[in-house]
Amino acid sequence: MLKEAKSFIETMYKELNYDEQSISNRIKEIEYAIESTGTYEHTVEELTYGTKMAWRNSNRCIGRFFWDSLTVVDARHIQSENDFIDAIENHIATATNNGKIKPYITIFSKDNPPQIFNNQLIRYAGYEGMGDPAERSVTQLAERLGWHGSHTDFDILPLIYKMPDGAMKYHEYQPHLIKEVAIEHDRFPKLQQLGLKWYAVPIISSMDLKIGGVTYPTAPFNGWYMVNEIAVRNFTDSYRYNLLESVAEAFEFGTLKNNSFNKDRTLVELNYAVYHSFKKSGVSIVDHLTASKQFERFELNETRNGREVTGKWSWLAPSLSPTLASNYHHGYKNIMKEPNFFYKKTEATGCPFH
Amino acid sequence: MLKEAKSFIETMYKELNYDEQSISNRIKEIEYAIESTGTYEHTVEELTYGTKMAWRNSNRCIGRFFWDSLTVVDARHIQSENDFIDAIENHIATATNNGKIKPYITIFSKDNPPQIFNNQLIRYAGYEGMGDPAERSVTQLAERLGWHGSHTDFDILPLIYKMPDGAMKYHEYQPHLIKEVAIEHDRFPKLQQLGLKWYAVPIISSMDLKIGGVTYPTAPFNGWYMVNEIAVRNFTDSYRYNLLESVAEAFEFGTLKNNSFNKDRTLVELNYAVYHSFKKSGVSIVDHLTASKQFERFELNETRNGREVTGKWSWLAPSLSPTLASNYHHGYKNIMKEPNFFYKKTEATGCPFH
Repeated sequence: MLKEAKSFIETMYKELNYDEQSISNRIKEIEYAIESTGTYEHTVEELTYGTKMAWRNSNRCIGRFFWDSLTVVDARHIQSENDFIDAIENHIATATNNGKIKPYITIFSKDNPPQIFNNQLIRYAGYEGMGDPAERSVTQLAERLGWHGSHTDFDILPLIYKMPDGAMKYHEYQPHLIKEVAIEHDRFPKLQQLGLKWYAVPIISSMDLKIGGVTYPTAPFNGWYMVNEIAVRNFTDSYRYNLLESVAEAFEFGTLKNNSFNKDRTLVELNYAVYHSFKKSGVSIVDHLTASKQFERFELNETRNGREVTGKWSWLAPSLSPTLASNYHHGYKNIMKEPNFFYKKTEATGCPFH
Repeated sequence: MLKEAKSFIETMYKELNYDEQSISNRIKEIEYAIESTGTYEHTVEELTYGTKMAWRNSNRCIGRFFWDSLTVVDARHIQSENDFIDAIENHIATATNNGKIKPYITIFSKDNPPQIFNNQLIRYAGYEGMGDPAERSVTQLAERLGWHGSHTDFDILPLIYKMPDGAMKYHEYQPHLIKEVAIEHDRFPKLQQLGLKWYAVPIISSMDLKIGGVTYPTAPFNGWYMVNEIAVRNFTDSYRYNLLESVAEAFEFGTLKNNSFNKDRTLVELNYAVYHSFKKSGVSIVDHLTASKQFERFELNETRNGREVTGKWSWLAPSLSPTLASNYHHGYKNIMKEPNFFYKKTEATGCPFH
């Protein structure tokens, strides 16, 4: 822990232009704390900057241009169930920001924090033949706790949590907190009749945040969506909503034979529909090519600051028209730098193989 | 060499159900040959089957379902310049097969073979601001040898070669040998006015073939094209023909702002155009989704035969609508099994980083 703490403090304090004296003082302090208590506490500044660094080091994330604009909420002091629920609902409300989404993280205590069992704070339930297949196990967990969904394709799952000394429970969010966008296409009005929608804010709640040797097991965080995450992966992956055929039918594209290229056309128009539905509802979203441009600017900034950008190519190349994004044509070292976010388990979404 | 030879012979002979006696006899023979001459000669059967195995082991290739249908031409005996040129032109003619393309390889001597300096036997020249930028250095080489192109975007490069005891030379193919396809789109007639075309057969000539410890440095081989290799990579990569904007203009799609998704639409329609132009000309080509289906069948066959499929994910995931291909959702071990094909140098096409 001391080694990792030292490395973190040195990196962070140098980036922020602290002098050598401050660095060695702080390291001595930490050394003493670890010797006497087995661990150490981050200052609010360390927690804040360390978390931003964790985002900056997230190899799979194409949105890292905005790493320094993350709002970091220090919720380490929160002990009671009410305060925990309040903090979670406050996260959702403030990050949603009526559509103008803020990158946001709420960090709970490193020691005996409340536990969250959801993959994301907001997510749709998955039932046999209905809803989001990626959420079947979380849905079953909620049901075992007594929750009953309405059995639509888009039931918002409750928060599933456990206070340090309590039992596992669920909490249904106040409905007005959850912003959702109905999906339509201005040139294909039949799409609307499918009743597709998606929630505004993807708030990952299944990852550990590690800073300077310290693990924060409960630290839900969000940016905003890149359009193809919803339109390609969530809506058309065969093991997710698997909607390619019904959407193509709504577009009246005719045959879906591979060499008609109508599957490819459907994919493009569905991305168009999701993007413009979000925009029309005033909800932040980024298209894949703009995200890639922003990533280029991030790379440039990092190089200017003498830092090497690590990355995971298979995640950085967008799932729509990947070659039109500059990342496709670069190589990235997939080395995990710390601070960083780590999966607790095989992620429920995305392909764990890449 | 002996170790690799043994491993190859054992694998091949077992796959072909030879008995143990035949295997140990052949290995003894090879052992003796290596001891007395420093190398050994493959039988025609070994050369043929070993080459097919090399294709089967090509991690980047999505077309491996057809590995066993490769036509292997044993050209190891060829010594004279005339015979070499004949063999090359015969390869082009027979593999082109008037459009019904045959997977085909011509293997020259392992000892002092004629050398080929082209990336592919058929390829377009690249000049400053014209033609294929990936071929600039080969074009300059041809020019230094006295070749003069017509300075169009689609000048067929000559064969650049060197006989073992000769100087580097170039040879212009008989024009009737080179089948090309003019690109048009049935719903966007203006595309035809751009005068785009592409050659029918991609014959890779820059890779070493390695079988059982023996390297064949000159062994040009081909399958047929997957549509997105031409329509996405060759035509729209910014460091290749970079045609996205002019094609979009021909399609009259209007704005190319990222969030209009017109870049994505252009890409799909250009793939449609290339695919159907090839088909209309009677030239073999496969769409990306059918290729991926064939790869699934290849994987199934291999599993049934107790062989693990290795692969390079970033090459197997097609460059158009990658998530619609099953390979996107699989993991592959990128372990190089032998026999295999190896790049002599950084390849001129494709992204060397993936």
